[in-house]
Formats: sequence, C-alpha cells, structure tokens
Amino acid sequence: MLLCDIGNTTYHFLNEETNYKKDVKSFNPSLIKEKIFYICVNVHVKKILKSLDNWIDLSSYIDISKYYETMGIDRIMACEAVDNGVIVDAGSAITVDIVKNGKFEGGFIYPGIKAMGEAYKNISNALDYSFNFEVDLDKMPKNSKDAISYGYLKLLQSEVFSYDMDIYLTGGDALKFAKLFPKSHVDEMLIFKGMKNIMKRADIC
Amino acid sequence: MLLCDIGNTTYHFLNEETNYKKDVKSFNPSLIKEKIFYICVNVHVKKILKSLDNWIDLSSYIDISKYYETMGIDRIMACEAVDNGVIVDAGSAITVDIVKNGKFEGGFIYPGIKAMGEAYKNISNALDYSFNFEVDLDKMPKNSKDAISYGYLKLLQSEVFSYDMDIYLTGGDALKFAKLFPKSHVDEMLIFKGMKNIMKRADIC
Repeated sequence: MLLCDIGNTTYHFLNEETNYKKDVKSFNPSLIKEKIFYICVNVHVKKILKSLDNWIDLSSYIDISKYYETMGIDRIMACEAVDNGVIVDAGSAITVDIVKNGKFEGGFIYPGIKAMGEAYKNISNALDYSFNFEVDLDKMPKNSKDAISYGYLKLLQSEVFSYDMDIYLTGGDALKFAKLFPKSHVDEMLIFKGMKNIMKRADIC
Repeated sequence: MLLCDIGNTTYHFLNEETNYKKDVKSFNPSLIKEKIFYICVNVHVKKILKSLDNWIDLSSYIDISKYYETMGIDRIMACEAVDNGVIVDAGSAITVDIVKNGKFEGGFIYPGIKAMGEAYKNISNALDYSFNFEVDLDKMPKNSKDAISYGYLKLLQSEVFSYDMDIYLTGGDALKFAKLFPKSHVDEMLIFKGMKNIMKRADIC
C-alpha cells in the first residue's frame, strides 16, 4: 500500500515500512501506476492529481465538522493519529494542535525556522543571525543572537508546556525542536498514522 | 531643551512638553541650529549627525558594561527610565527587557506587527491575514485568522506576564499592544525619560 503526504515543496511517500521524498518541482506523479492514497496542501499539485485515477484523495473521507474549513489537511491527519496530546508539526509553518479524547480542541500557527529568521533579518541586518537551539531558555539573554533565539524558541516552548499534555513532534524540523521538548514523542510518520486511521475507519484498506 | 530619538524610519523630537515626528527620508537635520541631545539606531543618519556640532550623541554617556555591546541604544535608554519592571517596546521589532533594582537583567527580541505579518504571508498566501487583537487568548483558536493571531500575541503575552513585574509599554505600536497588557503603564515618552536621567547623571542639563 502506497501513501503520500504532499506539502508545498515535497512529496513524502510511505511504501509499507519505507519512506522517501521527492521534490514537487521535478517529480512527475503520472509515473506511478499503482493505487496511491494521498493528502495534498499544494494547490498546483492538487489540480494535476485530480486527473489521475489511481491517486485517491483522502481529504474527502474526513469529517470536517470536527475541524474547520480552512484547516490544512496535514494538520487534520496528524490530529487523527492522536487521542490525547499536543501535536507540534515543525515545517515551513509550525502548527500546534490540541486533541483531547479524540476531539480537536483548537490550535495555533507559528512561523517555521526559515520564515522567522527572515522576519528578524527584514527588520534589520543587525538581527540577521541563525537561531541558537542550544541557548539556555531559563536565563534572560544578554546578546543579540540569543535575544532573537529566546524570542522565537522560549515563547513556543512555554506555550506548549503550559498544556501539560503528551507532546507529539513531527514535520521536517522535528529533530531540531526535539531539544526544546526533550520528553516528546518524535514521530515523523505521524501524518501517515492518521491517514491509515482514516482508511481503516472508511474501510478502504 | 531639545531631545531626539532617531529610529530606522523617524526622528522623534521632544521640545519641553511637545513631541513630534519627522520622516528620516525627508528631514534635514542641519536645519536645527540649537543644541540637541540625541540617540540614533539608524546607521546612515548617525554618519550625518557626526558632522553637526550642535547634535550631541548621548550614547557616549552610557555605562555599556551594564548592557551588551550590540544592544540598541533605544533599548538601553528605556531601561534607564525604569527601576523595576519589564519594558515592552513595540516598534518594527518588539524588545522585551527586564530591569531589577536599576540593573538590566537581560531581554529578548520578537518581530513587530509588520515583520510577523509578512513572515506568515511568506509561508503561504493562505496565512495572509492581519492580526486580530480582539482574539480571545484564553481559548484555542478554530479558524486561520485567530490561529496566527494567537500564535503571535498569546505567546508574547504569556512570556511577559510570567515575570510578574510592572509592565512598561512604549514604541509606535504601544496602544495596539495595550489590549494585551491591560494593567501596563503606557508611556510613549519612556525613552526620553531615560535620556533625561542619563543627562542628569552626566550633569549636562
């Protein structure tokens, strides 16, 4: 069984136990001939896939009334993988979602590493630093690099800790953020788990 | 006595009790003939003012060992105005600084409204919303506009509240952020207060 999670920049495939990525710009989805279940947030790719019969969009199997209309399908699938916890999906955006007893309780969106770095740089060249993930978040900073790192990382960490729930960490930057959330469950396959749960429930696998 | 706080975009003047602003792009500082005490974070303007004898740079009267080398002179002056408290200076960047018993204890830098709005927009057009300052920060959001507003505003609010100190709010966006910090002291003249304190101590007024 082939699954695919398509973001703005990559196709992320799962073939049984093996996962691999392809670039959105160069990969041709019509090369895949077998049945493949997917979710997609990329507007352009979505259009192409509509014309390919073997590509099956799992978004139509979601009960959207549990979520909200403009919520990304990747966030929804991650929520479908967890019964109780806070899900931190660290990609181009960082989405933080709460699930209690299988029910989505709301969530927020924070900029990812690249977008936030550019935000500081656009304010002033004096703030053009890469983030220091080793910064001591229990101490108020006294230099510029740590002052922006704390501003970005400590505020996110405190908010996530404040829920006092199990933390599930996923997305392309999950390993970087694992330093901030040392007791979290790091699971880069979380979205695929949600997709499988939806398929089981819809009886299509 | 004439004072001036020069940022990246404006000259902010204080003449006794009257304050007014001039655009950095169009204002000609050599038109001022009287003695004027200033601070300046704008690299270009700094160079011009060095050649004008009546413009006196207050940064040389600061004991920098109390702060750190690359810290903005505007942040330092705001700290010089407060004995105990957390100072939130909401401009193109939002700086948050702690002063205890007249001693700078450290601080962090967060993007201002414009920079953060652009950060979200650059991730995806689906996140191109203006921030909702009326969002209920005690409830997890269930729509995109509130999800980014919460991500930006709640995280800052929680961090600032966590110090459990008096809050001093200043900068061009102080009034917008006053909604987040209802019990804060809003003081758009805070930097001028710090400048006056420095002048008194240096015996130059």
